Amino acid sequence: MLSEAVRQYLRSHRGQHLEALCELLRIPSIANATDDDACERAAQWLSNRLDGLGLSARVAPAPGRPNVLASAHVDDRKPTVLIYGHYDVQPPDPLDEWATGPFEPTVRDGLLYARGASDDKGQIFAHLMAVEAWQRAGGGLPVNVKMLIEGEEEIGSPHIEAFLGSCAEELSADVVVVSDSEFFAQGLPSITYALRGLVYFEVTVCGPREDLHSGVHGGAVANPLNALAAMVAGMHDETGRVTIDGFYDDVRDLTAAEREAFDALPFDADQYAASLGVAALGGGEADCEVLERRWARPTLDCHGIVGGYAGPGAKTVLPARASAKLSCRLVADQDPAKIVAGVKRFVAEHTPRGVTASVAVSATARPVRLATERPAMAAARDALHEAFARPTAMIACGASIPITELFQRVLGRDAILMGFGLPDDNLHAPNEKFALDQLYRGSEAAAAFLGNLAAIGHR
Amino acid sequence: MLSEAVRQYLRSHRGQHLEALCELLRIPSIANATDDDACERAAQWLSNRLDGLGLSARVAPAPGRPNVLASAHVDDRKPTVLIYGHYDVQPPDPLDEWATGPFEPTVRDGLLYARGASDDKGQIFAHLMAVEAWQRAGGGLPVNVKMLIEGEEEIGSPHIEAFLGSCAEELSADVVVVSDSEFFAQGLPSITYALRGLVYFEVTVCGPREDLHSGVHGGAVANPLNALAAMVAGMHDETGRVTIDGFYDDVRDLTAAEREAFDALPFDADQYAASLGVAALGGGEADCEVLERRWARPTLDCHGIVGGYAGPGAKTVLPARASAKLSCRLVADQDPAKIVAGVKRFVAEHTPRGVTASVAVSATARPVRLATERPAMAAARDALHEAFARPTAMIACGASIPITELFQRVLGRDAILMGFGLPDDNLHAPNEKFALDQLYRGSEAAAAFLGNLAAIGHR
Repeated sequence: MLSEAVRQYLRSHRGQHLEALCELLRIPSIANATDDDACERAAQWLSNRLDGLGLSARVAPAPGRPNVLASAHVDDRKPTVLIYGHYDVQPPDPLDEWATGPFEPTVRDGLLYARGASDDKGQIFAHLMAVEAWQRAGGGLPVNVKMLIEGEEEIGSPHIEAFLGSCAEELSADVVVVSDSEFFAQGLPSITYALRGLVYFEVTVCGPREDLHSGVHGGAVANPLNALAAMVAGMHDETGRVTIDGFYDDVRDLTAAEREAFDALPFDADQYAASLGVAALGGGEADCEVLERRWARPTLDCHGIVGGYAGPGAKTVLPARASAKLSCRLVADQDPAKIVAGVKRFVAEHTPRGVTASVAVSATARPVRLATERPAMAAARDALHEAFARPTAMIACGASIPITELFQRVLGRDAILMGFGLPDDNLHAPNEKFALDQLYRGSEAAAAFLGNLAAIGHR
Repeated sequence: MLSEAVRQYLRSHRGQHLEALCELLRIPSIANATDDDACERAAQWLSNRLDGLGLSARVAPAPGRPNVLASAHVDDRKPTVLIYGHYDVQPPDPLDEWATGPFEPTVRDGLLYARGASDDKGQIFAHLMAVEAWQRAGGGLPVNVKMLIEGEEEIGSPHIEAFLGSCAEELSADVVVVSDSEFFAQGLPSITYALRGLVYFEVTVCGPREDLHSGVHGGAVANPLNALAAMVAGMHDETGRVTIDGFYDDVRDLTAAEREAFDALPFDADQYAASLGVAALGGGEADCEVLERRWARPTLDCHGIVGGYAGPGAKTVLPARASAKLSCRLVADQDPAKIVAGVKRFVAEHTPRGVTASVAVSATARPVRLATERPAMAAARDALHEAFARPTAMIACGASIPITELFQRVLGRDAILMGFGLPDDNLHAPNEKFALDQLYRGSEAAAAFLGNLAAIGHR
């Protein structure tokens, strides 16, 4: 239950909070941009803000982008909660499809448009709002709070495992909350208990030493783009199944209970298709239901192909090389290492005469399942129920949140995925947005969660 | 036979001629660049130069890039020769693979490096040198000379047909020479009698309205890049044959005489592969010889794929659309319109559920065969023989020179393809170059050709 004072504080400070979040959204903190400064500035902004809320905060340097750490210890007898989010954002391309600039946050019809609005600056900011409300209007934090705000989530968190290991003591907590997920639907508060894993890789095919004239040499020399297209195409069969050897070996089929729970969700495939602007749903395994394909089946998607000529007009080039960015989404109990080995074998076996091919893996994440029957999970479900006035659904998510698996493995904790995004937030796409109602109610849920945790007592 | 005075003039003016050619090469006259000015400047430079040689020259405006026209009438009883070349060049990308700037002509080891050095500024300039030598040292031109220097050859000459039609009278000639081809090998002067045609097209596949997160939606929504890769891959079978319906219907098989002539050429497949930096030759139909595949068999090559994320690092995007630039090289008697229809049918039949696809054709050119037994052809063969001190070979070429087909159709003339390039000139690729020896001897061949033509008399 949320105290009336905390709730009132949140409701009367919406204007100030929105303004502050917009400041953060204006910082183009893309982890893989060549400009280091934006990530530094975003981290420093968060650290200053947390300091101002009475937490002890710092920007912790890392081999890559820095992390933000903060903590407030109030009582040894109270549990400690670690709240995780990330301040880095996806690159904004294609820029010309944004109605307003990705780093010029703009409110239209109750929706806040900006890169990172939902993923993940807006979500982590809801927790900052909750902390602020308890500090200013609730008589201080009801539990011990720690925060970890990462700067490399969108590039696969290459340094976070080492960082967690080195700060395991500083980050130890009874409860871990990850706020980087979404509701199943508007008005249906949701907690995610399963996430897909990821293997992101690039296949490069090399042919002639230099780009060649396709008229003079075409037909005599293997074309790396033709070869790459054949390789990418060959990774699926005609039923939509991935043909990588052993790909499905460790896939756990849905239980009857899970299938029932999926079926009970308010999901309409036609409506879903219409919301994405497609006439029909394709992709994935033809014989699986849509939610199963998104949540409980592995995939292989191509994200970009580079090579030859991509400019305007025509160029008759036979390219010297071509490469494809690809990723597999994995489900329990697939092992990224085994999938990588399968991909490498596939590429080696499908390299045609006249070219060479190689595979470079840039990110991997294990699929995750989280325990659902725990007091802290109940505290989160109840908090969401209270703030959004509807019982909380337990759902899965097709995306990867690699930190969740690391919290299991390095800190020994199954996280609670309490996020406030909505399915149409345009994550990773132009015109990303975050509903202000999700921000405001989300902050109330986050505040209620801290209160509910206090009632549980120490772990 | 070349008069000693003309020969001596050419030999004593090499420095000045090289300097002038470099001026022209410094102008980045890329037809499809957004900057109009460079093409205008190149055309004006040529017009001024031709004026200075005593021809009546002008820059003829066109709907696209302007053409340069020039003429000198010396004697009604002499034949008229029309010399064709083009001043526009291919885009220079990838820029970082050039040892020196594409528009900073540089001589290294007797080779002139620059975009357009061989294709086609250097070749057309050899004819200007020949004209100059006759005017200054040979007592004036021995035949009536006309020149047409085009500005849109590298983008498929979209306006030249209309232009030829409108200037048919002004361009009428007894003999047409196209100087935009190459020797079979260094030291082996060659005239090309067959050219492949071209159909250049772009296939665009559209899926969701906006780019999507491949984790959240992957497996439920058809991925336009996956679909496009499958489409491109499906255009070949495992033996390297193109699967477009009816693709081979009108392909004329090599005659025994042609096969014998091909076999007699000094061609070593292993050496050819090594020269391109490939361990083995792939591509094309597995059961055809290499020269046959390059000259007498049709192809389908992918030149570039656009869509999703092509920047550094990883982005987990399920793209809204993807497109592939492709072209088919055609041989006699394939009809571009029939091939386009086949491609459109193929794409329609191979569009998977969940996406739409379309085909946009940007250029077509019919394949060409030219009569070889003519007095003017003999004049060209003899001129090359004299300048390069070796009998001239009659060869084919895998590239398209669409103007040749237009000269047949609009002006009623089979052109003579007398070009001075070499096979390793890196056409359309980084580090394009032109051997100075080809420039200098080429100008002597061009001059001898004019003299030989005068001896034939009027058509």
